[in-house]
Amino acid sequence: MSGDRKMRLGAFLMAGGHHIAAWRHPLAHAQAGVDIDHFVALARIAERGKFDMIFVEDAAAIRERNSDMASQAARSTAFEPLSLLAALAVNTSHIGLVATASTTYNEPYGLARSFASLDQLSGGRAGWNLVTSASELEAENFASSGLRPHSERYERAEEFADAALAIWDGVEDGAYLPPGGADFTDRAKLHPVHHRGKHFAVEGLLESPCSPQGRPIMVQAGASDVGKELAARTADVVFAASQTIDEAKAYYSDVKARLAKYGRQIDDIKIMPGISPIVGATEAEAKAKYRALQELIPDAVGVALLASYLSIQDLSSYPLDGPLPDMPETNLIQSRQQLIIDLGRRENLSIRELARHFAGARGHWQVAGTPAQIADAMEERFSAGAADGFNVMAPIFPSGLEDFVTLVVPELRRRGLFREAYEGRTLRQNLGVGVPAKR
Amino acid sequence: MSGDRKMRLGAFLMAGGHHIAAWRHPLAHAQAGVDIDHFVALARIAERGKFDMIFVEDAAAIRERNSDMASQAARSTAFEPLSLLAALAVNTSHIGLVATASTTYNEPYGLARSFASLDQLSGGRAGWNLVTSASELEAENFASSGLRPHSERYERAEEFADAALAIWDGVEDGAYLPPGGADFTDRAKLHPVHHRGKHFAVEGLLESPCSPQGRPIMVQAGASDVGKELAARTADVVFAASQTIDEAKAYYSDVKARLAKYGRQIDDIKIMPGISPIVGATEAEAKAKYRALQELIPDAVGVALLASYLSIQDLSSYPLDGPLPDMPETNLIQSRQQLIIDLGRRENLSIRELARHFAGARGHWQVAGTPAQIADAMEERFSAGAADGFNVMAPIFPSGLEDFVTLVVPELRRRGLFREAYEGRTLRQNLGVGVPAKR
Repeated sequence: MSGDRKMRLGAFLMAGGHHIAAWRHPLAHAQAGVDIDHFVALARIAERGKFDMIFVEDAAAIRERNSDMASQAARSTAFEPLSLLAALAVNTSHIGLVATASTTYNEPYGLARSFASLDQLSGGRAGWNLVTSASELEAENFASSGLRPHSERYERAEEFADAALAIWDGVEDGAYLPPGGADFTDRAKLHPVHHRGKHFAVEGLLESPCSPQGRPIMVQAGASDVGKELAARTADVVFAASQTIDEAKAYYSDVKARLAKYGRQIDDIKIMPGISPIVGATEAEAKAKYRALQELIPDAVGVALLASYLSIQDLSSYPLDGPLPDMPETNLIQSRQQLIIDLGRRENLSIRELARHFAGARGHWQVAGTPAQIADAMEERFSAGAADGFNVMAPIFPSGLEDFVTLVVPELRRRGLFREAYEGRTLRQNLGVGVPAKR
Repeated sequence: MSGDRKMRLGAFLMAGGHHIAAWRHPLAHAQAGVDIDHFVALARIAERGKFDMIFVEDAAAIRERNSDMASQAARSTAFEPLSLLAALAVNTSHIGLVATASTTYNEPYGLARSFASLDQLSGGRAGWNLVTSASELEAENFASSGLRPHSERYERAEEFADAALAIWDGVEDGAYLPPGGADFTDRAKLHPVHHRGKHFAVEGLLESPCSPQGRPIMVQAGASDVGKELAARTADVVFAASQTIDEAKAYYSDVKARLAKYGRQIDDIKIMPGISPIVGATEAEAKAKYRALQELIPDAVGVALLASYLSIQDLSSYPLDGPLPDMPETNLIQSRQQLIIDLGRRENLSIRELARHFAGARGHWQVAGTPAQIADAMEERFSAGAADGFNVMAPIFPSGLEDFVTLVVPELRRRGLFREAYEGRTLRQNLGVGVPAKR
């Protein structure tokens, strides 16, 4: 790690805010999920702060089956990510645009094509956060056969990623010729895909030039073993959820150690854990801000959210002031379950405490403090081999992101940890990750 | 038809232009397909002209298998339509945004969700041109089983349309409550879909409010019998390709006559045939413009295009100055085939003549003349029960659209045939079609 190594920063956008009760807070924009002006304003705040990227999550379903619970806990209505980011592309000039999209209910050609389109729209600023769809509510929108097991979803995801990369790589730079000549294409630079796998058959070319950044950025958040392996093989950026610095270091070392077997260098992947910063002029002000948010969470909502993340029907039959019961293995996101269980045991939290703690930032690292305290915490992890940067999850939008950009970013700059200006025009240039060898 | 009945106008956008050789013309922007600034400029020209909508076609594949031919005939590289229109939504304020998307290789929940997102982004200006994928090149990008027959594609399309409409209708206006209360949703206004059909299973809700226009606009271009029937049952707008006024009147009457059995009124569907206008200050200037374009078409390209639309491998073994040979029945777009064959017989055209004639505007009605002559031709069809409006296919962009807006639109206004100002903010308001009964 050289002396001029810089942090990477992502702005994880989410309607009213990342805090579960953000929609109830007087400072939040409660109907923000489908307000494009709100998202344009957020993207511009992040770009003013010289963030590497904005990031949006996704699920092709509502998030909560129980309508009583949904009515009190719904984070927001939402745009579909690719259309949202296309609209933001033309309102920004340098910031990367990373959309989550699932390999479970899409097809490689369709999704590779949509990301190629976003990449062209934005001049090379697109990124794809590859996920599998782990929710039964999503399964019910697409298949009569129900939710597929974790291993089957990842088998499909592996093949999906390979096919998508091959589709992007099928058109070399310069394949579409400048106007004025007799030919429209240079046929030697077009390489039709020939993919025949277990899940997909693709034989063709994109009707789109080569990506302005060589290839869109691949993002993953794999926390399971197969997820980390897929990330090591194909990702440029990895998002992670770690509570403690030790967890973060272990995750960081684990993913980086997997790179060599794919012929990759440790700097070829940027690992960016989530951080939910609550910024105050004083520590007391920050803690008060945090408490004000936490007090907006109804116990029933926190406990139900905890139960849903643990993939059990109901926790309300257990004493709320007692510990978590032992959990059955399921085929859901096993690593996220384990993270919650570990946190409860480590800090000896009751169900109620764990629910509230977890509900706030959904398992991500929360830091409430002054700009210097937040910069200290980030610098510690950045310097200790726990992070190459962070995905910033503001508890409330726009104020939480505005606070971070106005107060924390300058503090990171004073320490030489973060850029003063964008290095380039593409996301890949700004992240400082090279173009992988073509397939 | 009342005295103040107005024409509907769509601007069919297509990179460099609709003319097959537009990319070779000195006035065209040859690399326009992935230039978002170019499309923003076109959308603004159309909005300045108070067009009802812009429209983009789609295919999830390249358009020509033969690489030599593609290199001389490629219309352009292209954006994926939904991301393109999302970017245009935030650069326009009133014009409708209609994207083509296929029912063959998508899923109803995913596509209904993307159009709902575009509809929210644009404040109620989204429309979906529902098609099936008739190209083998598309089939090869998605399936190992090859192109499905016309009847199977339409069976899937019928079920797809029903599922998508039910998904949109699942969220009533007002289901997501204003901020400040204890609840986020009004549960009585949420109606989860329960669709179990032959092709799809959907059980859920959109995480998006009700469409600002009640429901996105449904567009179709069905020319086969099943296509017209689906249009009569579900479409708000129908695009059509008719060469002569008699063909146009027959098509118009046919589709309108099918409405009653679905409980619909004849004004519930707007029929908008394509028109490719070549505008000149004098008729001679217009004809010269047209000839200059036609002369840019290499014979080989015209004949190959004709063969591909007729779904036969090759026409080059037939004498180019002789008539079309008899055609076998295929499972491709049968109605388009018939249109070409009829044109050749009616006007006694050789293969070469038919190829060139057809290549120019791909089977659509071409009118080269002064603004008054073009307005005359449009008015004749509008008044004769052959059209409710037109989908304007400028031969070259931006100049062809600019000419139409600057010269022909004022002429239509002088005749009281076209609006002076937008009637409303949504596409449905401007088209003047009501919100269909909810499902």
